[in-house]
Amino acid sequence: MNCFADLFALRRRAAVLASTASLLGWDQETYMPDAGSGARAEQASLLAELAHEASTSSRLGDLLAQCESSLPALDAPAEPKARLAAAIREARREYDLATKLPSDLVAQLAKVGSEAQQVWKSAREANDFPSFAPLLEKMFDLTRQKANCLGVPKGGELYDALIDEYEPGVTAAQIAVVFNPLRDRLSAVIARVASSGKTISDAPLHVSIPPELQHKLGLFVLEAMGFDLNAGRLDTTSHPFCSGLAPGDTRLTTRYRDQHFTDALYSTMHEGGHGLYEQGLPKTASLSINGQTLPLWGSPLADSISLGIHESQSRMWENLVGRSREFWTWLFPHAQRIFAGALDKYTPDDLYRAVNTTTPSLIRVEADEGTYNLHVMLRFELERALLNGEIKPKDLPAAWNARIKSYLGLAVPDDRRGCLQDVHWSFGLIGYFPTYTLGNLYAAQLWETIHTQLPSLNTNIASGNLIPLRNWLNTNIHAHGKQYSASDLCQRVTGKPLSADPLMRHLERNAKTIYNV
Amino acid sequence: MNCFADLFALRRRAAVLASTASLLGWDQETYMPDAGSGARAEQASLLAELAHEASTSSRLGDLLAQCESSLPALDAPAEPKARLAAAIREARREYDLATKLPSDLVAQLAKVGSEAQQVWKSAREANDFPSFAPLLEKMFDLTRQKANCLGVPKGGELYDALIDEYEPGVTAAQIAVVFNPLRDRLSAVIARVASSGKTISDAPLHVSIPPELQHKLGLFVLEAMGFDLNAGRLDTTSHPFCSGLAPGDTRLTTRYRDQHFTDALYSTMHEGGHGLYEQGLPKTASLSINGQTLPLWGSPLADSISLGIHESQSRMWENLVGRSREFWTWLFPHAQRIFAGALDKYTPDDLYRAVNTTTPSLIRVEADEGTYNLHVMLRFELERALLNGEIKPKDLPAAWNARIKSYLGLAVPDDRRGCLQDVHWSFGLIGYFPTYTLGNLYAAQLWETIHTQLPSLNTNIASGNLIPLRNWLNTNIHAHGKQYSASDLCQRVTGKPLSADPLMRHLERNAKTIYNV
Repeated sequence: MNCFADLFALRRRAAVLASTASLLGWDQETYMPDAGSGARAEQASLLAELAHEASTSSRLGDLLAQCESSLPALDAPAEPKARLAAAIREARREYDLATKLPSDLVAQLAKVGSEAQQVWKSAREANDFPSFAPLLEKMFDLTRQKANCLGVPKGGELYDALIDEYEPGVTAAQIAVVFNPLRDRLSAVIARVASSGKTISDAPLHVSIPPELQHKLGLFVLEAMGFDLNAGRLDTTSHPFCSGLAPGDTRLTTRYRDQHFTDALYSTMHEGGHGLYEQGLPKTASLSINGQTLPLWGSPLADSISLGIHESQSRMWENLVGRSREFWTWLFPHAQRIFAGALDKYTPDDLYRAVNTTTPSLIRVEADEGTYNLHVMLRFELERALLNGEIKPKDLPAAWNARIKSYLGLAVPDDRRGCLQDVHWSFGLIGYFPTYTLGNLYAAQLWETIHTQLPSLNTNIASGNLIPLRNWLNTNIHAHGKQYSASDLCQRVTGKPLSADPLMRHLERNAKTIYNV
Repeated sequence: MNCFADLFALRRRAAVLASTASLLGWDQETYMPDAGSGARAEQASLLAELAHEASTSSRLGDLLAQCESSLPALDAPAEPKARLAAAIREARREYDLATKLPSDLVAQLAKVGSEAQQVWKSAREANDFPSFAPLLEKMFDLTRQKANCLGVPKGGELYDALIDEYEPGVTAAQIAVVFNPLRDRLSAVIARVASSGKTISDAPLHVSIPPELQHKLGLFVLEAMGFDLNAGRLDTTSHPFCSGLAPGDTRLTTRYRDQHFTDALYSTMHEGGHGLYEQGLPKTASLSINGQTLPLWGSPLADSISLGIHESQSRMWENLVGRSREFWTWLFPHAQRIFAGALDKYTPDDLYRAVNTTTPSLIRVEADEGTYNLHVMLRFELERALLNGEIKPKDLPAAWNARIKSYLGLAVPDDRRGCLQDVHWSFGLIGYFPTYTLGNLYAAQLWETIHTQLPSLNTNIASGNLIPLRNWLNTNIHAHGKQYSASDLCQRVTGKPLSADPLMRHLERNAKTIYNV
């Protein structure tokens, strides 16, 4: 039994180091004085080095092997044994991922990534794609090497090895099966909305609200969502994020713009959704097995499943709760009060309609709930094609612009508003984009199941009682940690594999309600 | 030459770890959610362990020995060589201090310290000294062992080994030589003030000022002091502190009470004085020697000399600048403006007098500028006597109360307001108290020198131009790091060894001005 306790302890040490590194990151974005950035880079790099050493040590490898060979013969009740087996299975997966890349490749990826990110920045400013193309090519070359080191599954493709880091167990082909119908039905909805000629006023979103009142509303909504502010915080940063940095310590950030209060509201609900997942993971619990107590923090049982499932939690609160008519029925009078009458000219329905418009646009991060997925899908298609050599980096602008025309009906005026808009590829974040849309798909599919299991959900939302929803998510999603893969969890909870249907039903219903198309 | 670079690099790694540990501490006091405390203890303990390992490693010991044997033959210009020699001398001192205690003694000190601190807490609440006495006895027993391990200097006493940790190179006998006349002259001043029968109104200190306006005044004064807010911050905590946590990152805290605005003002100036020292240390500079560049952060050349010298910086800004008539001449109209007229009934002179009263009291942390030193001196005398066995722990209350009567003319009504008021001894902070009064002594002696070297100092203060003073401190104190010992620096800068005269001249002048005695 000792190898199990030793494995958990060693991984916990790595988690304590990683959580300290997270605090360095959080502080850098929130309160660190500007002049502290040089020293912060040294601190962050040393902590990253120590955390990496801790999660790739040969001692950890030896313990894993011992656990794997001891497990089959372990005489223990089925339920704790299954959880222990899942913990070891996932620990093995992470250990292999962390140790498979030769250190010179890691160094080259970091070097080229840092250089390419700089060049990307200037290229975007100067709208000069050709200056960036050679670095993009280098980065895709290195990423192909990375994928080969990680190991391409039998019958699979390079992309599969990459996505495994973010969405374990899913393949590019599986993603395409779900994305293709989504893309076609979504483009059709957009065309119908455009031909309806109807426009919805967004005036209520542009009322001027001081940041401190927006902050008050954000805290009010977080409390209603059941986010524990005794075990978390909400601060202000230039880019919103959630850091589930340690047990009892989950930190959210948002940003405030005077005349766009729903930006802050939805980013707070989005990060709040991530935060509820982090607070719902069993980080302070233990696994009791044969009289031994294994504290879970640091083990895969206290960690989130995948980026897609994490994103499903944020998108559910942001879009499925936060843009519903019931939500605005409840929130509107509170927002009126907190905003000291600034919304008095409007009705809950004005707000509901204004936050549900469909407007094709060029920039992903400004896109609405539906069209956002088309931005993601075109990136998935392009990075997959770049990786497989079907598109050359120099031909990226043409391929990008053709897809924007075909999916969104828009002409791209320059690469700055086209293929130069995102930083991700420059530093090697390739295979990551699909998780955004996977999140929306999981959220919509879970949402249909939740409605059948919580028949009063709409009534509850309309009265601001969001706790039954949070509790359902705690029990059915959060509490499992990494015990199930994303697709197993989806099948287990919703009874079906992931499909484009629930998300499309939701978006088509919205288009019907708002645009009558 | 390589051993020097390696030594600096190894110490820098230890500094990076220690600075990360400092951030954990700062965050715990400022923004950490309450429920994060369990994980924070794990993070802090792991970082402390790593920092301790880094500063006690045998590799560091080997490098030190190599540097010591290479140094004499090193052919280099005198100035950088002298600084390098000082760095190695101090690195040796710190290494020996850190490695001299056997680990079982360290563990026992931690265990008894933690237990005694708990018992002290309850004993103070219940006013029950006898329940604390056995633990105090244990702690002094262990501390005697600690002193013997650290090494008592020839002809010296146990206390000398302990104070070396806080105020290197000073002995108990040397302290007594300065403290004794101070004590007698101070007691005499207090008696004269008492017999004058004069009372000064403290009404202007109890005007109600909202915390956010007090914060504004604090930032205004910090900026005038030349504290760089681009390389530092001011936050709110229950106990004010300064954390010079990294190059470019010096964080101050204070606390606000509505009807005591000078509490926050003086704690901000006090911590600001510490902060200017931290910002003035050459943490981003390097030592160039024979074509090699040794970055200073992590070396003793970028570290403060002693707690006494650190305290001299905070006390100078708090008391010698902040309680001067010139300071109030300048600040008063700004405080009026920032406080929106709340001080309109008063004059600068009212403020000046109210912050310079002499009022003997029972509690050290509430004492005024002068009597504070008597509180410190009696603790020095008692901890020295306890250590030497001249007083038994069980007899502490009687010894304490007798001194309070003799020095301050007060009767101690209970031990809660007597020998149970401070936490320090319970967890082994013995040999530390004198640094508070050494700080006042150094500050006053430096202050006289500064006045001769900056003849316009008073005029400058009266017009809010505090930068010449900050620059003088940067050049004469801060820039040296640990190159000189405290007593060498005092001799070098003021031309004299430390004496009670300057502080007494200052306090007697104050008593004359305020009480006409």
